[in-house]
Amino acid sequence: MRVARPRCTLGMVVRGGGRGGACESRRAPRHGAGRDGRRPGQAGPGRGRSGPGRMSRQAGRSTESKKMYWYLPFISPSASMHLMNSELFTLTYGALVTQLCKDYENDEDVNKQLDKMGYNIGVRLIEDFLARSNVGRCHDFRETADVIAKIAFKMYLGITPSITNWSPGGDEFSLILENNPLVDFVELPDNHSSLIYSNLLCGVLRGALEMVQMAVDVKFIQDTLKGDSVTEIRMKFIRRIEDNLPAGEE
Amino acid sequence: MRVARPRCTLGMVVRGGGRGGACESRRAPRHGAGRDGRRPGQAGPGRGRSGPGRMSRQAGRSTESKKMYWYLPFISPSASMHLMNSELFTLTYGALVTQLCKDYENDEDVNKQLDKMGYNIGVRLIEDFLARSNVGRCHDFRETADVIAKIAFKMYLGITPSITNWSPGGDEFSLILENNPLVDFVELPDNHSSLIYSNLLCGVLRGALEMVQMAVDVKFIQDTLKGDSVTEIRMKFIRRIEDNLPAGEE
Repeated sequence: MRVARPRCTLGMVVRGGGRGGACESRRAPRHGAGRDGRRPGQAGPGRGRSGPGRMSRQAGRSTESKKMYWYLPFISPSASMHLMNSELFTLTYGALVTQLCKDYENDEDVNKQLDKMGYNIGVRLIEDFLARSNVGRCHDFRETADVIAKIAFKMYLGITPSITNWSPGGDEFSLILENNPLVDFVELPDNHSSLIYSNLLCGVLRGALEMVQMAVDVKFIQDTLKGDSVTEIRMKFIRRIEDNLPAGEE
Repeated sequence: MRVARPRCTLGMVVRGGGRGGACESRRAPRHGAGRDGRRPGQAGPGRGRSGPGRMSRQAGRSTESKKMYWYLPFISPSASMHLMNSELFTLTYGALVTQLCKDYENDEDVNKQLDKMGYNIGVRLIEDFLARSNVGRCHDFRETADVIAKIAFKMYLGITPSITNWSPGGDEFSLILENNPLVDFVELPDNHSSLIYSNLLCGVLRGALEMVQMAVDVKFIQDTLKGDSVTEIRMKFIRRIEDNLPAGEE
């Protein structure tokens, strides 16, 4: 059965599914704001988000006038209080990968699906990230790398990868994960040698950066699950997205 | 494709899959212990875990001599440093439920599958919990309720449900979740009115408690997703498990 609802893209229907409102975000926890109530003074990214000094999300400018077929999360004001140990997440992620391995014939399809799911997560998570992190506009890819490694990974996975192997042009770098919480309980069976177990992360990064106008290529090039000593995610800047409409959900 | 590996039950193969060693646990983060190295002084639950004052897991006593078809996690010494915000988990859980809704014909089957996955997570998570929490042996179900609400939920979901509605016999209570982080971005579509979206949690509780010799019945009886004002999980003590062998993985 396919959940055939245009607005149902991940989980179930995402709250706050109006056009402009769908892109509205919240800063972390506010007293006096109901779970579903909107704060009048808090504009979506199309209004309040793209000012100087903020990591911009200019695509949001068009959300009032153009129909969009993706919906960003309506961040719960209580969500930021949910600081949790990673083990339940790790095991739940394992259940997801196992389910996909049952559903798809080969590892390549599982990898693609993980990337796609991650993308859909990333386009939502970026709003949460911008709301919580108070990160300003990134002026170059090096600054973006810092934000990803030192703030985003710390916030959502509890780890801080190191940044290495910059390309001479400054358009490529690697994130080195000494410990990847996603694989804490995992060994790859021999018959899944092509599985990129943590590929969801690549999709998350790709989706999130696309929402701030950066098209990037993200892939694992080393993985402790494959016997490498560290896990390495390679990120390559492709282009600045000038189009006002994001590529949308996949 | 089904991952037909008897030892592959969740995620992929769980580390440390020897018989006795599979039940070995670790206390959170230790310096000088390699990721896969075992600490000689740290016995599995069958040896060091069941002493007086510890929440016992007597089933572990038989793990040296009897073949077991489930494997408990080999806790990463670094795992406890992974304190993360819950949003990535929330969205990933949403992806899992969505996938199951695609895979199964009706909501009841999805509910069952979520419960089963949760059970398999619970039988692993309990080791991590015991290792981290330093929780002593629970003398009655009221104490168990306290441990679940005030320590386990706080640790793994970042929330502390309240405990209410005790049955006169003291064998049933409710956990009231004011905010369920699993549903932060979710609304149920109309065609999934029977879906128990967060049912994984029931399985986790059932599986974890079974590992400490408690057979319990766990179910949602209120859910904010269904329009209720709170989310209520009802837990009923069924019996003490005297059998040395756990029911095993489902």
